[in-house]
Amino acid sequence: MDTPWDNRYAQRTQRMKSSAIRELLKLTENPEVISFAGGLPAPDVFPVEEFTAACETVLKELGAEALQYGATEGYHPLREMIARHSGRYGISVSPDNILITSGSQQALDLIGKVFINAGDRILVEEPTYLGALQAWSAYGAEYVTVPMDENGMVTDALENALRSGVKFIYVLPNFQNPTGVTLSLERRKQLIEIADHYGVPIIEDDPYGQLRYEGENLPSIVNLDNEFRKNGSSEYAGNVIYLSTFSKTLAPGLRLAWVIAPTQVIRKLVQAKQGADLHTATFNQIVAYEVARGGFLDRHIWLIRRVYGERRNIMLDAMEELFPPGVEWTKPQGGLFLWGMLPKGMNTTEIFKVAVERNVAFVPGASFYALGGGENTMRLNFSYSNPGQIQTGIERLSNVLKESIIAGK
Amino acid sequence: MDTPWDNRYAQRTQRMKSSAIRELLKLTENPEVISFAGGLPAPDVFPVEEFTAACETVLKELGAEALQYGATEGYHPLREMIARHSGRYGISVSPDNILITSGSQQALDLIGKVFINAGDRILVEEPTYLGALQAWSAYGAEYVTVPMDENGMVTDALENALRSGVKFIYVLPNFQNPTGVTLSLERRKQLIEIADHYGVPIIEDDPYGQLRYEGENLPSIVNLDNEFRKNGSSEYAGNVIYLSTFSKTLAPGLRLAWVIAPTQVIRKLVQAKQGADLHTATFNQIVAYEVARGGFLDRHIWLIRRVYGERRNIMLDAMEELFPPGVEWTKPQGGLFLWGMLPKGMNTTEIFKVAVERNVAFVPGASFYALGGGENTMRLNFSYSNPGQIQTGIERLSNVLKESIIAGK
Repeated sequence: MDTPWDNRYAQRTQRMKSSAIRELLKLTENPEVISFAGGLPAPDVFPVEEFTAACETVLKELGAEALQYGATEGYHPLREMIARHSGRYGISVSPDNILITSGSQQALDLIGKVFINAGDRILVEEPTYLGALQAWSAYGAEYVTVPMDENGMVTDALENALRSGVKFIYVLPNFQNPTGVTLSLERRKQLIEIADHYGVPIIEDDPYGQLRYEGENLPSIVNLDNEFRKNGSSEYAGNVIYLSTFSKTLAPGLRLAWVIAPTQVIRKLVQAKQGADLHTATFNQIVAYEVARGGFLDRHIWLIRRVYGERRNIMLDAMEELFPPGVEWTKPQGGLFLWGMLPKGMNTTEIFKVAVERNVAFVPGASFYALGGGENTMRLNFSYSNPGQIQTGIERLSNVLKESIIAGK
Repeated sequence: MDTPWDNRYAQRTQRMKSSAIRELLKLTENPEVISFAGGLPAPDVFPVEEFTAACETVLKELGAEALQYGATEGYHPLREMIARHSGRYGISVSPDNILITSGSQQALDLIGKVFINAGDRILVEEPTYLGALQAWSAYGAEYVTVPMDENGMVTDALENALRSGVKFIYVLPNFQNPTGVTLSLERRKQLIEIADHYGVPIIEDDPYGQLRYEGENLPSIVNLDNEFRKNGSSEYAGNVIYLSTFSKTLAPGLRLAWVIAPTQVIRKLVQAKQGADLHTATFNQIVAYEVARGGFLDRHIWLIRRVYGERRNIMLDAMEELFPPGVEWTKPQGGLFLWGMLPKGMNTTEIFKVAVERNVAFVPGASFYALGGGENTMRLNFSYSNPGQIQTGIERLSNVLKESIIAGK
């Protein structure tokens, strides 16, 4: 059907592409397929009973408020709770430093809207989170990349990348999506020093930081940056914008996340959010507050860690046992994902098509490369499938990989 | 606090302004103030019991789905319900023509993102909905305006406005925000014919269409456009993008609205929405579907009509009795707002300051003028305050107006 809209798209719309992951996920909807492709939390750990009780309480006690329009900044008690919680981890912020967003994806979009002019260069890890590329490319962002190894972003390559002039650095330090890799303490400090030297601010995206299954928690970049600038003070220095979310600890279907930023940046993000969706659903914010307060969230995260940690172990053990020689993979200490690397010259997009026919799915890694490359890589999710499915899925996938390696493609 | 973010804002951020309404609303938070300023539905008509029952049912029967990530397009049964409902009113669309958005504000933002290049001219009514100006100005829109009278947009002025070249026409035909005026049937037809002659498509924003308290329903522009193009067929012709919402019929705190558009436009809006917030909260969509299905929404709209119709009558009667000569106002047949016009030379922003001191509030009308003007106008909301408050508030306001008119400012 031809309509007068067809030739009226904005220039930016030509740059928009449907997320490769979302298109691929459609192929994996067949219930026979064991999918390691999505980034989905396990529904087994959704606190359904707590949500049921919270909805009842909130509608009974605060129904008129919960169903009404609300402040763009977010529900104040929820912002206070996040501020207190952040204080526990060493960042001293007030609710005025916090904006509630409709998922972290909206935080990325609003940051793009407020900061990115067409042609601006953003420094990202290679590979990096696809959703950030998608959000920012709509504003005409261009990318400068820094490679990663098993200790995260290779900070030795940073100076060279920064010399070209970048607007900000985007980093996922904990159990990165897609690689599962964690930025080492030494490199966190290096990143902060080099960024400071070049006067470039940092966006720290931390959806998975609380989901650590082994090893010691590392201080966040926002904390280390404060220490660096303030001689150990916990007062928020404002150089690092920090993003986190309830999607992985409570439930993604609520679309609830938050930004920590300097108050003047929050004001700009609030103006952008007024035009974008007025505010995040009041009902969801109050229900999440009701579920999370009183210590439940801390207890619940223990459960998630146990369940996902076990699934990670099962996947790693099965891969160790079954995957053919020549395939390498990361051993994440937390999060939802690990990263597979096949011999050079192999193409995981081609292998994906065979895998789906054999009822197992993953995400070909090339989507996560801002400047192309990564054709021999793949992302595997270990949070969504149950232990039996993980074992069977890895068996299927290892057979596909063996055949592909023998066929040399 | 100076941070490296301060000098990094995008050019569009310079154009963003905090909504004047939202800033003014802060002045009206004092509980002594009777506020006709907001656009809030009455919490008295929120179906709290039905929401409580629906939350329980949804979490019990569909908890894993309701709390999980969902499709960007929206919850399929909800899209099917909207398609059926649209069919009842004469537009034959499929779920593929429907995108669920996080409130109509997001629909406006996504339309801006997909269609507006910096410098594009958008034709709007004068005055028009502030949220649309806010959403589109961020993409660099410029505006061409057409004046309004008691029959809506003055279509005789359209041709002249269209000659300058516009990307699309934005119209709120029913009980317009801010004026409460309804576009007459004759002018709807003229609008469609003139738009067709110039090959310009239309965005029909219809948040209040179901809230009519007197008079006959008029066919929507999307319907009339189909009849015009298809010789009376109900098949969706695609020229008119239609927006509506559950904010005024169920509850705004859910942030649930929808767009009806050609499938290829929906695909572009979906790509933009992937980058903007992935999808609208799954939980809210399923709960709204559960509340709305089975005929409840139709019955509930009867209740809203009765309550708001009574409030409108009380406000109009009190104004008739108390307002000083020289003040004129619209008599809306539906919706949430009416529009006051003071003698030329008076300034409602100044009067607002006095009014708030006397514990009554409205919105100065100048905010709704895309190109400036309207200093002597005001928007009054009649849905939120109860009958006693409306009577008292109009008494207070009429005293302020009398004094202002005597003082001549």
